[in-house]
Amino acid sequence: MKLYVIKIGGNVIDNSENLHQFLKDFAALEGLKILVHGGGKVATQISSAMGIEAKLVDGRRITDIETLRVVTMVYAGLINKNLVAQLQRYGNNAIGLTGADGNFIRAKKRPVKTIDYGFVGDLDKHSVRAESIGRLLDASFTPVFCALTHDGEGQMLNTNADTIAAAVAVALAKIYETTLIYCFEKKGVLQDIDDEDSLISEIDPERYEQLKLKKIVSEGMLPKLDNAFDAIKSGVKEVIIGQADELHLLGKKSAFGTTLRN
Amino acid sequence: MKLYVIKIGGNVIDNSENLHQFLKDFAALEGLKILVHGGGKVATQISSAMGIEAKLVDGRRITDIETLRVVTMVYAGLINKNLVAQLQRYGNNAIGLTGADGNFIRAKKRPVKTIDYGFVGDLDKHSVRAESIGRLLDASFTPVFCALTHDGEGQMLNTNADTIAAAVAVALAKIYETTLIYCFEKKGVLQDIDDEDSLISEIDPERYEQLKLKKIVSEGMLPKLDNAFDAIKSGVKEVIIGQADELHLLGKKSAFGTTLRN
Repeated sequence: MKLYVIKIGGNVIDNSENLHQFLKDFAALEGLKILVHGGGKVATQISSAMGIEAKLVDGRRITDIETLRVVTMVYAGLINKNLVAQLQRYGNNAIGLTGADGNFIRAKKRPVKTIDYGFVGDLDKHSVRAESIGRLLDASFTPVFCALTHDGEGQMLNTNADTIAAAVAVALAKIYETTLIYCFEKKGVLQDIDDEDSLISEIDPERYEQLKLKKIVSEGMLPKLDNAFDAIKSGVKEVIIGQADELHLLGKKSAFGTTLRN
Repeated sequence: MKLYVIKIGGNVIDNSENLHQFLKDFAALEGLKILVHGGGKVATQISSAMGIEAKLVDGRRITDIETLRVVTMVYAGLINKNLVAQLQRYGNNAIGLTGADGNFIRAKKRPVKTIDYGFVGDLDKHSVRAESIGRLLDASFTPVFCALTHDGEGQMLNTNADTIAAAVAVALAKIYETTLIYCFEKKGVLQDIDDEDSLISEIDPERYEQLKLKKIVSEGMLPKLDNAFDAIKSGVKEVIIGQADELHLLGKKSAFGTTLRN
């Protein structure tokens, strides 16, 4: 059976018009699906309203215990439950989750080396319990994951939403024919970064090497694409990088985003 | 099959020692179970940290939009997910929910009469989707509900946790042999309110009438017990009113709380 794992970031969540269009399109998408969402500006707003300042060490964001409390409130509470309520409104039987729920995603607290990142969880290939998530899908629920996991010892952990989406897609690829979709600001990978009409509709590993050599793929896109090809090597059928408000084009004749496959 | 629906309030959540003992005992309890939890002081603390004051009209708490945001963060995020992470630690496959998730509990915004209570949801006998919750139970998950519902139109609503527990128990009594347990400060209904050893172990409707006539049941207990007997009339097998830190006595020879039955 086919499964879509779709990730949206803060840029979608912060723009309520785009968000509603996206949620409508997501709800209308046929077949099994999982939504993974990031944070957005509201976490920063709530933090500052509570007088908690962002902790940075060498330019890296640190999740201290206060920040963990705020992201647990904002990601798992405010954002996740409002997304779920909207999806229900649009007829999708969403169920909002962290990795602690159902023990679906168990992470390891990042070890302290030069930097102590605080309550940040890293995933490995045993982190995601695919069969357990599959039981929700089989029971007609649409899991909606926020960027939080747990360590199995009672500790919630902050975990990157891109990483969660990839790990969930890879784990579920053992059961379903899985497409991983990253929604981002641009229409996909562009031949010319300033021209939205220069969308590259498909990239295979060979083409990817050429694009890297020609420096057509920008610095910022490199880790995203490297991770995408890693996911494909680990069993995900294809990864699509596209724009949230074009999700309705998925599976239609017109191209939705850039598809990466082997 | 037997099902326990257990409700804990803020007094349990605010006392971390009692809470951990309760969660261990809850995790160890055999059979199907659902936890429903209230808020606790942390919602008030977060509100005041954010500069939001409790809104009262004629002594009644009002859920305005700001308050709804805070309780969505605190109930569904901070409290619910930390309870779930702890239950997972103790080996219970908890899954944290609001009524919006899975469309499990759909409420109606309370109509404005003399007071506008704001974003408060009332339940009726069609609110709880028992079969849908049953699918989670059948898939070996333990639902953990916080005191939030939705209206099906995208709006989250604040709903009394006692009311949710009773509505869930009544709805699920059509499928399971359901016991509803309210955890509260005292060991149960006491013959003498100042003597914890004067526990009344069982009350049927006839005994209840006597207790009311003799004014042994205090004013504060009356609505709780009336609601309990209503739940029994609607199909719940029994309602137990007991102390959270005595949950380990449930089903043992020593009495746990006061059992109400027909």
